Amino acid sequence: MMWRRAMTVYRHSIEVMFQHCDPAGIVFYPRFFDMANEVTERFFADVVGWPFRDMHGVDRRGIPSASARLDFRAPARLGDRLDWEMHVGRLGRTSATLVYHAGCGTMAVLSGEVVIVHADLDGVRPLPWRDDVRAVLAAHQQAPVAS
Amino acid sequence: MMWRRAMTVYRHSIEVMFQHCDPAGIVFYPRFFDMANEVTERFFADVVGWPFRDMHGVDRRGIPSASARLDFRAPARLGDRLDWEMHVGRLGRTSATLVYHAGCGTMAVLSGEVVIVHADLDGVRPLPWRDDVRAVLAAHQQAPVAS
Amino acid sequence: MMWRRAMTVYRHSIEVMFQHCDPAGIVFYPRFFDMANEVTERFFADVVGWPFRDMHGVDRRGIPSASARLDFRAPARLGDRLDWEMHVGRLGRTSATLVYHAGCGTMAVLSGEVVIVHADLDGVRPLPWRDDVRAVLAAHQQAPVAS
Amino acid sequence: MMWRRAMTVYRHSIEVMFQHCDPAGIVFYPRFFDMANEVTERFFADVVGWPFRDMHGVDRRGIPSASARLDFRAPARLGDRLDWEMHVGRLGRTSATLVYHAGCGTMAVLSGEVVIVHADLDGVRPLPWRDDVRAVLAAHQQAPVAS
Repeated sequence: MMWRRAMTVYRHSIEVMFQHCDPAGIVFYPRFFDMANEVTERFFADVVGWPFRDMHGVDRRGIPSASARLDFRAPARLGDRLDWEMHVGRLGRTSATLVYHAGCGTMAVLSGEVVIVHADLDGVRPLPWRDDVRAVLAAHQQAPVAS
Repeated sequence: MMWRRAMTVYRHSIEVMFQHCDPAGIVFYPRFFDMANEVTERFFADVVGWPFRDMHGVDRRGIPSASARLDFRAPARLGDRLDWEMHVGRLGRTSATLVYHAGCGTMAVLSGEVVIVHADLDGVRPLPWRDDVRAVLAAHQQAPVAS
Repeated sequence: MMWRRAMTVYRHSIEVMFQHCDPAGIVFYPRFFDMANEVTERFFADVVGWPFRDMHGVDRRGIPSASARLDFRAPARLGDRLDWEMHVGRLGRTSATLVYHAGCGTMAVLSGEVVIVHADLDGVRPLPWRDDVRAVLAAHQQAPVAS
Repeated sequence: MMWRRAMTVYRHSIEVMFQHCDPAGIVFYPRFFDMANEVTERFFADVVGWPFRDMHGVDRRGIPSASARLDFRAPARLGDRLDWEMHVGRLGRTSATLVYHAGCGTMAVLSGEVVIVHADLDGVRPLPWRDDVRAVLAAHQQAPVAS
């Protein structure tokens, strides 16, 4: 038997701007990590309902990264519209693996993942996800395919 | 029999400045990739003898990244002096894996690697390393331990 | 007699994101210049019809800045929506003064101006504006008040 | 009678790196403000003896900018060594005008000024300079020429 849990993918488009590009005329690769963070920030504001402003300023929580990896398939250029997709891979008690794909038209540009940890800003200690946050993350989780 | 090829590690220190830090008071993780790029840029200028200025402007070559990954062990804070080390892992015909470690005092802050590809800037086609560049990369390569 | 030429103001909103903010939790002031550049870039793409991609990549033209100044009235914080307004002040043969105001709700955040020069990318020589570009810039120019 | 108070100018060199440059191959102008901030940050750490780390983290003080202006004389390119000079212009009770010049070899690249305000980080209220900080700022102040 094969099944796949219904998954909601979060989508956000980012246009490649002047400030993203290097003297070679393509996106300077650290800027792709800035973009990945922007996707995450929008997701927390628009979908989770926990904008960074409240997370940091009010609740004194943060989601620092434990690791970050991107594989680049094709260069992106000034003016390209990058369509980012994000879903949740592994969902831990205090962490989550965010999986990203970005493309331009039909061309794959990159894929990768960032492991975030829910932490106390003041002590930088990991903390369990709040139930409402976990529920939204779980709704965006891609389940393994079983047979 | 066990042997290990003599390896030269490249070292470069970077102080965490205001512009690297986020509202949580720690380095915003995409800035670590900026720093990794700075280490690479210095290495090419100071050790390889092929500064980016000549590479891009004169020779129309570049070293775009095929993939980039960093694992973060501990947060770095404003004013921390990060001691970066870089060596070459796999050395291909047109690519190289640059391996990074950074610490602050005795504390490990991060480790990871970036795969760079030697490419024609105009066509973004991979090109074999020039012999003199390959020789320097090879001198910084860590050989596998054999028994 | 008093008159004022009909002026079109260009408007573009930018939300303050994590990457704009410093350890003090407010926008790091150089990021406001990044935002001003974003407003200009959008204006050239959406209104002038000459996106930077074509300007730089196809036509080998650019609009480097001769000077840039911003006066800050109030700090902007993570999550603030900044409403930017831009119009053209002085319009020269090869240059233009872009005048910016940004606010958050009813609060003024900043005002200032950037002088851009239309230039040949290869020689960095000033060049007269193309007629169609000049026409759009002129349509956004605020005329002096005469009596 | 003509006199000029002995002035100490602070000097700091910054090499133009890949991350500073735009697709036109020259420094993207907002990065010059990042550099000006770096000069100021080094000055406070190395000369004033009040590094931003202590200023922000321990004392909960900051020096946000009230205004920032740079005039660009010549483009700076990848690999250029920019020699920055900074002195204090007007020194107020709670503010200071920092005056910058940067050149590359014998060529002037830019000049301008940033007005900083000594402020309470928590309330963003202006506060009088501490005596020891004011003394160092005053020692770097350029006096008007009288006759």
